[in-house]
Amino acid sequence: MIEDGIKQLVQSLNVLYLLAGAVMILAMHAGFAFLEAGTVRVKNQVNALVKIIVDVSVATLAYYFIGYPLAHKVCFVRSATSLMADQGFELVRFFFLLMFAACISAIVSGGVAERMKFKPYITAGFFLAGVVYPIFEALIWGERWSPAFQGFVEHLFGAPIHDFAGSMVVHALGGWIALPAILILGPRMGRYVNGKSKPIPISNIPYLALGSWILILGWFGFNVMSSQSIETISGLVAVNSLMATAGGIIGGTLFGKNDPGFVHNGALAGLVAICAGSDIVNPIAAFVIGFVAAWIFVKAFVWEQEKLKIDDVLGVWPLHGINGIWGGIAAGIFGQKVLGGLGGVSILSQIFGAVLTIIYALVAGYVLYGILDKVMGLRLTEEEEFNGSDLSIHHITAYPEEKFKV
Amino acid sequence: MIEDGIKQLVQSLNVLYLLAGAVMILAMHAGFAFLEAGTVRVKNQVNALVKIIVDVSVATLAYYFIGYPLAHKVCFVRSATSLMADQGFELVRFFFLLMFAACISAIVSGGVAERMKFKPYITAGFFLAGVVYPIFEALIWGERWSPAFQGFVEHLFGAPIHDFAGSMVVHALGGWIALPAILILGPRMGRYVNGKSKPIPISNIPYLALGSWILILGWFGFNVMSSQSIETISGLVAVNSLMATAGGIIGGTLFGKNDPGFVHNGALAGLVAICAGSDIVNPIAAFVIGFVAAWIFVKAFVWEQEKLKIDDVLGVWPLHGINGIWGGIAAGIFGQKVLGGLGGVSILSQIFGAVLTIIYALVAGYVLYGILDKVMGLRLTEEEEFNGSDLSIHHITAYPEEKFKV
Amino acid sequence: MIEDGIKQLVQSLNVLYLLAGAVMILAMHAGFAFLEAGTVRVKNQVNALVKIIVDVSVATLAYYFIGYPLAHKVCFVRSATSLMADQGFELVRFFFLLMFAACISAIVSGGVAERMKFKPYITAGFFLAGVVYPIFEALIWGERWSPAFQGFVEHLFGAPIHDFAGSMVVHALGGWIALPAILILGPRMGRYVNGKSKPIPISNIPYLALGSWILILGWFGFNVMSSQSIETISGLVAVNSLMATAGGIIGGTLFGKNDPGFVHNGALAGLVAICAGSDIVNPIAAFVIGFVAAWIFVKAFVWEQEKLKIDDVLGVWPLHGINGIWGGIAAGIFGQKVLGGLGGVSILSQIFGAVLTIIYALVAGYVLYGILDKVMGLRLTEEEEFNGSDLSIHHITAYPEEKFKV
Repeated sequence: MIEDGIKQLVQSLNVLYLLAGAVMILAMHAGFAFLEAGTVRVKNQVNALVKIIVDVSVATLAYYFIGYPLAHKVCFVRSATSLMADQGFELVRFFFLLMFAACISAIVSGGVAERMKFKPYITAGFFLAGVVYPIFEALIWGERWSPAFQGFVEHLFGAPIHDFAGSMVVHALGGWIALPAILILGPRMGRYVNGKSKPIPISNIPYLALGSWILILGWFGFNVMSSQSIETISGLVAVNSLMATAGGIIGGTLFGKNDPGFVHNGALAGLVAICAGSDIVNPIAAFVIGFVAAWIFVKAFVWEQEKLKIDDVLGVWPLHGINGIWGGIAAGIFGQKVLGGLGGVSILSQIFGAVLTIIYALVAGYVLYGILDKVMGLRLTEEEEFNGSDLSIHHITAYPEEKFKV
Repeated sequence: MIEDGIKQLVQSLNVLYLLAGAVMILAMHAGFAFLEAGTVRVKNQVNALVKIIVDVSVATLAYYFIGYPLAHKVCFVRSATSLMADQGFELVRFFFLLMFAACISAIVSGGVAERMKFKPYITAGFFLAGVVYPIFEALIWGERWSPAFQGFVEHLFGAPIHDFAGSMVVHALGGWIALPAILILGPRMGRYVNGKSKPIPISNIPYLALGSWILILGWFGFNVMSSQSIETISGLVAVNSLMATAGGIIGGTLFGKNDPGFVHNGALAGLVAICAGSDIVNPIAAFVIGFVAAWIFVKAFVWEQEKLKIDDVLGVWPLHGINGIWGGIAAGIFGQKVLGGLGGVSILSQIFGAVLTIIYALVAGYVLYGILDKVMGLRLTEEEEFNGSDLSIHHITAYPEEKFKV
Repeated sequence: MIEDGIKQLVQSLNVLYLLAGAVMILAMHAGFAFLEAGTVRVKNQVNALVKIIVDVSVATLAYYFIGYPLAHKVCFVRSATSLMADQGFELVRFFFLLMFAACISAIVSGGVAERMKFKPYITAGFFLAGVVYPIFEALIWGERWSPAFQGFVEHLFGAPIHDFAGSMVVHALGGWIALPAILILGPRMGRYVNGKSKPIPISNIPYLALGSWILILGWFGFNVMSSQSIETISGLVAVNSLMATAGGIIGGTLFGKNDPGFVHNGALAGLVAICAGSDIVNPIAAFVIGFVAAWIFVKAFVWEQEKLKIDDVLGVWPLHGINGIWGGIAAGIFGQKVLGGLGGVSILSQIFGAVLTIIYALVAGYVLYGILDKVMGLRLTEEEEFNGSDLSIHHITAYPEEKFKV
């Protein structure tokens, strides 16, 4: 009888635990919105804010009816009585995992900002959360193919692919899906003129900082609650997330020469990279992982923008794509016992997972955005882009009163 | 002995649980503040921010000494030793329920913005949290009259009035109290000229979006923690809140033609409407409830502003008032087992509750703001309104450095 | 066996509990950043934001390797396996207490704003979190000298120094360390001309309000989780924090004549003052403590700026320094049973603690900032200060797009 009571209490606590994580990652979407609003020009701030919040809503539908059933073999079209089993734990688990699924499109958003049409962007978000992400999720994490596939990987390389909170499954996937979308769209008008790079100034650093702070704070839900039950909570995950943030900020400051964009995105670079191994690496290694991630971000961002001439507005490919891969591989290195980690990882499995992520993401991204480009057209007209997506899509500016004053 | 230990642990967890809810709803007041600051003109931003934060403080006093004792038969004027019973659970319950009480004046605030004096506004807030709300609360939820009254309703219509998290008790009450206040005040200068509607542009969509996001996030505390004990936490409440938010956002986007105001307020419309039935309806129904709520908000807002010529600045009557009623009735419809709900509700009880809320709110609103108008005068002078409430009341603008630059 | 299970559950919950507190106080640092960004001129907003976030990162290193071992006799340079004992509780405790340590430099930041070099500021932050704060912490709270020292104080004055959440150990310490830094730096150019005070207008009240709101919300983690275990959670602490906030806001409104700066900082004044006694005073006393704190802040701020001619930009000495002392002494007064408190405090011990805090802080502040001034120089050149620290240190303005428009 006492045991039953305890069991039920633990069940309640697990609902609370995953819910706290879900709400914290929902907050991260506000962070994505403000990070982008601060980084784009004033004439595209409204669009940045609207894209993200509508995205989350559309992803909710897609993942409820298609994505979650696909990855986790559970159907939600049934009576509330049946859904309330275990106090609705499965529903809250849906909420929690949905928040990861919805990140994919939010990551893409930052890359395609200021020039993409609203409808194809949202349509892509539906398929990303409903199909593209869940298929990959089902391979690495889910209940469908993961047991067999990870067993196969373990058989080949000695350990399953280790990605605790999604450096690869979420961030690298999103960042590498963004790349074809960015390439298909092409750079913003005036970004590269006669082969010369002409950087477009960002609009609002306080918004960028606000977005970064919200992301940092919510990320503790992203990482810690990835244990998915209160009894497996780990202080190591929390402090590794903190250490990688610190490493990313200090790295961003040093390599970015005090630039506020690199400082605040450095934190995010560190957090992207620590997701995979946050449960197994040493806190000192976590600091190093974050510090290196900031270095990678600064260097890769400049290389992407100036040498490759890819107009990735928020730098989501280096931030999430490359750093997600770095995080996956770093888990294989620093997770080793000899480097102070908990062990149980294989560097080969991690590299295999990294290659798999890149290939799947690139193919999925080219197919999805390629089809949408043919069917709907991805890009605003020149006039719409010149006027800004706020006026062109939302028929309003971010500061409507100002227009009337002039 | 083990049982005692578990009992005490559950007590601690209940304190934590309600505290988490209370802090999340306290955050919602920051959301109200920024939603209003973004929607009013720049010359009234400071006033919006100050009104809400002072409101919460005055409500704290009113509800501690008058409101909570009135609704819950508990007196807090006693020693700390006595207040610490059950680790201060009753105090935290006060904090949690106070946050609901304080919403009433925050809702009114958005309707009467840009033209109301500060003192009568705050005075009204004291009586709303100290008397007007607690009386109604005591009827539906509290320990005082609720058992007898709800028994009577159940006897008449087959079930008590079901309002899990306050679609009617909080939101409709606030929205319908705001209506007489708005009518007594009259429209802002220049809002309707010779019978023609001349919309006044809002100032800052990022602030509006920030306010909306904070409200959305805090709302999970508003709804989930309304179970008031960890052992009754329900994943259904959480996911229904999410689904209604998604429905509201998608509805706001479609019916509001991508307008960021309708998108972000659509989320709030959905959340207002789901409060009542979030514990009993099916997630698919929750989506529908939110979607319809956004449609109601868009249509009723335009009808109110353009046909009825009521200058309700943030549209709090359609948002909280009408949608709160919709939420109460929707709980009676979609809560039925035949529609996938948990059952135990009566549509007649819900309609009765809705009518009761409207009548009580209108009477209370007319009496309260009518008396304050006679005694103190509600409205700023024309000159004060023209200069803006920031300069007139707070002797400063929202961006003081700018004034000095010019 | 059941007992073991419960023990482990409590352990998990303690990790969650302290983690929640840690993340809430981490959020407070975002609050510090926006409070300062709103209070300085536009040309120093970026610097305000960057200072705080880099500070937290540097403090993380300093406290991990030096400060925490110093105060709590634990070394963290060991394997992850060993760190995972008790599910990493010690690591999360480090995270939680680090957030207090990092506050010291964040408090100083507001006083020295708009004219201090970046490197000496960050260097000072390293020593504050690594050495200066931990030594004092070890005396009052830590595991090292506290048992002996507090036993000695109890022997002398009848009770140990009572400072539940750090009115003195954190806030007064930070505020009184800031004073010598401010005096060594001297006032901003143009702040006092020919002995006349020429107030410099602040830039952005919505940012100030946002910062204040974030601080208020996070403060519930600061105070409540200071119990450091779920089983000692106290609803009294939560409601006392709320009452002091309300008292501070109402006091700030009345004594500050509706000024938004005093309203929002009034809340913080109340919260600074309630930290020490939040676990023992009566909620009514908490309101009084907050109300008086707002009065102290308003009067002391004007006195400091206009009579003493100290250019303490955010008023951190009156806000944290003087009000921290007030809070420590107020705990000794209102903690008494005769005034409705829980008892167990000695007014003499509190005064002794207050004097000790002031002396230690002044000495530490003069030595630290004095040495840094000699070695690195604390102050920007006149030209750098005139151009603003954003351009001088970060090579960018807060709104880069605007510069390009002109």
